[in-house]
Amino acid sequence: MDHISSLKNPRVAAWRSLKEKKGRDTAQAFLVEGPRMVEEALASLFPVRTLILRDGYLPPFELPETVQTVSLPEHVFRSVCDTKTPQGIAAVVGIQTPQLKGTRLLALDGIQDPGNMGTIIRTADAAGFEGIILSPDCVDLFSPKVLRATMGSIFRMSFSFPAFFSDSLKTFRDTHGYAVISSQLDGDPFFERKPIASPFILVVGNEGNGISDEVKAGATHRFRLPMRGGAESLNAAVAAGIMMYDLIRSELP
Amino acid sequence: MDHISSLKNPRVAAWRSLKEKKGRDTAQAFLVEGPRMVEEALASLFPVRTLILRDGYLPPFELPETVQTVSLPEHVFRSVCDTKTPQGIAAVVGIQTPQLKGTRLLALDGIQDPGNMGTIIRTADAAGFEGIILSPDCVDLFSPKVLRATMGSIFRMSFSFPAFFSDSLKTFRDTHGYAVISSQLDGDPFFERKPIASPFILVVGNEGNGISDEVKAGATHRFRLPMRGGAESLNAAVAAGIMMYDLIRSELP
Repeated sequence: MDHISSLKNPRVAAWRSLKEKKGRDTAQAFLVEGPRMVEEALASLFPVRTLILRDGYLPPFELPETVQTVSLPEHVFRSVCDTKTPQGIAAVVGIQTPQLKGTRLLALDGIQDPGNMGTIIRTADAAGFEGIILSPDCVDLFSPKVLRATMGSIFRMSFSFPAFFSDSLKTFRDTHGYAVISSQLDGDPFFERKPIASPFILVVGNEGNGISDEVKAGATHRFRLPMRGGAESLNAAVAAGIMMYDLIRSELP
Repeated sequence: MDHISSLKNPRVAAWRSLKEKKGRDTAQAFLVEGPRMVEEALASLFPVRTLILRDGYLPPFELPETVQTVSLPEHVFRSVCDTKTPQGIAAVVGIQTPQLKGTRLLALDGIQDPGNMGTIIRTADAAGFEGIILSPDCVDLFSPKVLRATMGSIFRMSFSFPAFFSDSLKTFRDTHGYAVISSQLDGDPFFERKPIASPFILVVGNEGNGISDEVKAGATHRFRLPMRGGAESLNAAVAAGIMMYDLIRSELP
């Protein structure tokens, strides 16, 4: 195990830079914190580049010998972490995400709130969705807040980041026979739909503006959730959760 | 319309104190911000005590003549508000909440996160639930973060704050014939349940620890949502949303 003691060490500075999008883009890597997230990263298809430990920390699982491990004094370890009271372990993970696959996919059209983004990915994992397609104007998937809100689910998902989001959805539709389901306030009643037999992509829209017009136009289905009382809308993560669970309901064991 | 110009005015100081629980308890009031929240407060059963305007602000609706209205210079108005870029209107509302009623109720057992609490209330409103029962260890319903996350739904709900939470649920069960539905990770499969014909209370548990043992023991139904992938749990607001919408599904028009 290597040891670094200086706050000014260039590797330490590079890890610290992973808190910001610019640093992550430069390094093509992100940082996850805590034993649970690190263990899930190690078990995933994501490449774990470095394990970072606080001096004296005993991880609750065996560290792989194949991954470089570095220990840091308390104050240096803390400087690298984003959480206020970091646990004793973190990992630098490459952003080479597993390539999109599956017959139940989610597409995020401009999700801006990191907590929403992470919660949606956590729910997608629980509901058995296999992959996430992100539009270019989504909040950065690898920001510390998103990562925390996924509770590790990011490591069980496959991803695609198409430069041309709505064109990508059309290709799935026309070339691969996917249904493209748009959730929108002026859609048809969701609970009255006919069964969807094909593979499908559920599109979730921006918190304020919903789904973009281009995506709506290319959808094969447009649905709204019923809304009673005087409520105007649902939280994006809640609406996505209700739709995801209802779409997989018929397939439940 | 009255005008107050000093930051040190005792009424201004009292309004500022409403940001903290202690101030709200002392005044038996809370503050809502922005034209939408204020309009919903005025249309509700909650008592609006005072309207507070920034000098020169033109509200998008007519102000009622029966409610005292005070205008403040920009910097004084800003000191009263919790949001960073406040809109020009706020209202002081008494915490005399409408008394609990309805046949579809939600009970919150130790919800701690203000965003979750507000989102759950917003979803309950949209799903047509009529009232919320809060355990004493829930986060304060009237904190600015909870209020914002409800998006105004708080004003369309009835409430109960029993000192003895699980006893209160048992009274609903034994005296009024309500089903008490506990959502817990070791419950029966939610989507395989038989229809619930009686009025019911859906109980949502604490984010980390779930529902307390006493409440579980007194429940008439115990359900879990299916979880695939390696996910261990769902966000409390998402799980509550999935269950609420599925429970009212059969009643949808």
